[in-house]
Amino acid sequence: MTTSGESMSGKGGARRDRGGGRDSRRAARRQGGGAAAAPYISRKIPNFDLLGEEALVAIEDNADRLLEEVGVEFRGDEEALRLWKEAGADVKGERVRFPRGLPRSIIDTSVRSTFTQHARNPLRSVEIGGNNLVFAPAYGPPFVRDMDGGRRYGSLDDFRNFVKLAYMSPALHHSGGTVCEPVDIPVNKRHLDMVYAHMRLSDKPFMGSVTAPERAEDSVEMCRILFGREFVENNCVVLGLINVNSPLVFDSVMTGALRVYAAANQCALVTPFILAGAMGPVTIAGALAQAHAEAQIGIALTQLVRPGAPAIYGNFFSSMSLKSGAPTFGMPEPALAYLAIGQLARRLGVPLRCGGSLTASKIADSQAAQESADSLLPAVQCGVNFMLHAAGWLEGGLVMGYEKFVIDADHLMMMHRYLAGIDIDDNGFAMDAFHEVGPGNHFLGCAHTMTNYETAFIYPDLTDSESFEQWVEAGEKNQQRRAHEKWRAMLDAYEMPDIDPGIDEALQAFVAERKAAMEDAWY
Amino acid sequence: MTTSGESMSGKGGARRDRGGGRDSRRAARRQGGGAAAAPYISRKIPNFDLLGEEALVAIEDNADRLLEEVGVEFRGDEEALRLWKEAGADVKGERVRFPRGLPRSIIDTSVRSTFTQHARNPLRSVEIGGNNLVFAPAYGPPFVRDMDGGRRYGSLDDFRNFVKLAYMSPALHHSGGTVCEPVDIPVNKRHLDMVYAHMRLSDKPFMGSVTAPERAEDSVEMCRILFGREFVENNCVVLGLINVNSPLVFDSVMTGALRVYAAANQCALVTPFILAGAMGPVTIAGALAQAHAEAQIGIALTQLVRPGAPAIYGNFFSSMSLKSGAPTFGMPEPALAYLAIGQLARRLGVPLRCGGSLTASKIADSQAAQESADSLLPAVQCGVNFMLHAAGWLEGGLVMGYEKFVIDADHLMMMHRYLAGIDIDDNGFAMDAFHEVGPGNHFLGCAHTMTNYETAFIYPDLTDSESFEQWVEAGEKNQQRRAHEKWRAMLDAYEMPDIDPGIDEALQAFVAERKAAMEDAWY
Repeated sequence: MTTSGESMSGKGGARRDRGGGRDSRRAARRQGGGAAAAPYISRKIPNFDLLGEEALVAIEDNADRLLEEVGVEFRGDEEALRLWKEAGADVKGERVRFPRGLPRSIIDTSVRSTFTQHARNPLRSVEIGGNNLVFAPAYGPPFVRDMDGGRRYGSLDDFRNFVKLAYMSPALHHSGGTVCEPVDIPVNKRHLDMVYAHMRLSDKPFMGSVTAPERAEDSVEMCRILFGREFVENNCVVLGLINVNSPLVFDSVMTGALRVYAAANQCALVTPFILAGAMGPVTIAGALAQAHAEAQIGIALTQLVRPGAPAIYGNFFSSMSLKSGAPTFGMPEPALAYLAIGQLARRLGVPLRCGGSLTASKIADSQAAQESADSLLPAVQCGVNFMLHAAGWLEGGLVMGYEKFVIDADHLMMMHRYLAGIDIDDNGFAMDAFHEVGPGNHFLGCAHTMTNYETAFIYPDLTDSESFEQWVEAGEKNQQRRAHEKWRAMLDAYEMPDIDPGIDEALQAFVAERKAAMEDAWY
Repeated sequence: MTTSGESMSGKGGARRDRGGGRDSRRAARRQGGGAAAAPYISRKIPNFDLLGEEALVAIEDNADRLLEEVGVEFRGDEEALRLWKEAGADVKGERVRFPRGLPRSIIDTSVRSTFTQHARNPLRSVEIGGNNLVFAPAYGPPFVRDMDGGRRYGSLDDFRNFVKLAYMSPALHHSGGTVCEPVDIPVNKRHLDMVYAHMRLSDKPFMGSVTAPERAEDSVEMCRILFGREFVENNCVVLGLINVNSPLVFDSVMTGALRVYAAANQCALVTPFILAGAMGPVTIAGALAQAHAEAQIGIALTQLVRPGAPAIYGNFFSSMSLKSGAPTFGMPEPALAYLAIGQLARRLGVPLRCGGSLTASKIADSQAAQESADSLLPAVQCGVNFMLHAAGWLEGGLVMGYEKFVIDADHLMMMHRYLAGIDIDDNGFAMDAFHEVGPGNHFLGCAHTMTNYETAFIYPDLTDSESFEQWVEAGEKNQQRRAHEKWRAMLDAYEMPDIDPGIDEALQAFVAERKAAMEDAWY
């Protein structure tokens, strides 16, 4: 694989340097507004490597055997079959079998181990890959929930609210994609409203539609209006989430969307979707081999479409209740699988997506928090580069929770601190302070504490560490109630980032034109 | 240091083999009753090593400098000062300074890297050290809380309830010590009731009193009644928690208790107690060096009292809110510190205590669960051998929570699964299942799933993963409510383990005699 040195050096700068005209106005506008934030995390602590060389080679070998002996079906996509045949795969009907080493050699030749996804505000562009980590909100829930309003179908208003909350959350680096389904908008039109909301209400990077190839095309076209056609041709500005129909099937909707993104030099995030016991074997090792096989095939396909197109190695792996068949989240089996997946993705040299703040709980209670933490931390530790579902997810992904969103965002800020590691230096060791304070005295007022106290510890917004008496005085609120107050206050304080009025007009015109060309479709 | 080969081979067996008389009756009784459980965890996954060699050496070097340049005060304990002087330390008044390498050489000579703590039921004896992990309940809260009864002072009834709950929880290996303060019993007598409750209501291993040297002595004496004098002389049957008066002070209550346990060949668990910014510097590296210095001194002192006495390298480290001075728990700074402490303890070759399910939250809400998970997982990953505060802790340790206890115990069971790792073998890879199922079909009914489904995934009691509709049908209970129902049902179902009636009588007589010899003291 190649590194993205060129792309990284051009991060935002190329556009800012052009000077004059529409581009520079656009760049200037893009600088304004929004919460101050590090655009992404550069981790300073090592990854947690769970498996030894022998186990990793065994998984890779089993993945190769799956691809060679069982193969993968590409359903209803002649072009994908043609590309694989041309590349040297064994194509019989829709079943494709892969000579050992073929997918990996395609990936090795042209996939980048790290790339820039540009935001319309260059200060918010993110590096995906290497030691970097980008947090994005949950994706896909048809329902939303808040403490007072309860559970209900998502609307475009809810969608906009979550885009605003992500924009205002310094711990989140990315606006995400389908932060909830705007169920009040026809299925065939809602992608236009969603992409426009990401572009207009936020200036963070975002994801496009994948629910039909033409909707992926609309997403890319809107990016061309926002960023300029030439810029999009040469730079990644949008991600598309391509779920595999595990086990071992890619359908034409997904490969169609994948081909649109890759052909436009945009990023396909290829994600095997495995609830072990249903879409994969009930044992972790087999599910890992399957996930590794499926991810490789999707990533390799992006390179057959356009060598060098950015791609992400995705993973969505969870366990299930074998008594009811219900998916479970935050359990130890997926935590172990994440750690292994991190190693497999690094060996392949492709940026990794996995994990999230996942839970099966219906509400933002202790179960939700425990499962989310047990899901978030191993993902952070496994070296994940792009984390979808980092905030808001409830009820196995059926519900986007308002309180859950801000609780998760608070937790993500703690991960920023965690990944900064320990400063091993003279200031860190504080030898002068020990001499100043001596045995039995406290460090509260010493010079070293005075110098360091403001930056020493994180103190998250939604953590209550005050005394019992203060907590009673403040109304005995649980964290969920404090979270409720927080997101309401955030939405009240929201200010829309500036945008070039000409671009905004062009985007609105495109949306209106495309909508006018379609009948409403509701399924 | 030496390993505990002798001690391990004698685990329980020596007593069972004796045959005849009171000892064999005692052994037979000890086998009965209680929840089935693995007596402790043998971890099958690697520890997470955060720091490299250079950073570790720097911490060790700064710890040595602290001991050499600043030193440690032993307040009011002439015997401790005498022992240090004899060992070659520089003693001036109560301040002791240590020639570089002295504490470490004392530890290297005689501390065991792993030892057995015997339970009265030999099936529940635990190995402390090496790859093993023992979970014990929270220690020390003066208050208790449950959902319906709210927050109140702990009583002996509460104490007994938590001993019963720990006895019945398969995830907990240990009965702990002061699971809550029985505030209704005089301060100078309550240790007798506490130790007796551990001995009578449970058959898991337990901790003794440390609040005065004579109370430590009473605890050991009761062990001699329960286990036999000779057995106690040769085996570890009780732990005492020795907190350092950080920074760099040991008071006579603690060193007095430490000397009682060590002299009796019982285990002192030496714990620097550092809220960084108050009892230590506000930067992690300095607090680590301090903790490493303090732990070494306490452990070395146990060896000066009796070479070869079992000892544990303890750590209690947390951050604080620099705006209010309130301690914070579950924050990323202590999580990083745990990982480093694990490495330092392993390099020293002494079993480690750290971590817990810690939180500042007043109630078992999402904050409590998030902080507890963020505190538990890094401790588990750092290689902890004995975890105090693994269940029940609320409000920074001021409160023992009934619901929190069973929620935490559920979580600990997930850690059992986590530490078992991934099976990398033919059954794990399930190649036959892929051939049987093929692309696009599900694995639910395949032969491999049928063979493995019962043991494939953990499904914790208090996790609700069912559908929204089922959850509504069941009353829309949050996890805390389900936990409330669980601990009530557990206490209803509790059955006391058998004990030799003669031993029980002797224990009760001892307690009565000691109580009769004292006036009630309430502070």
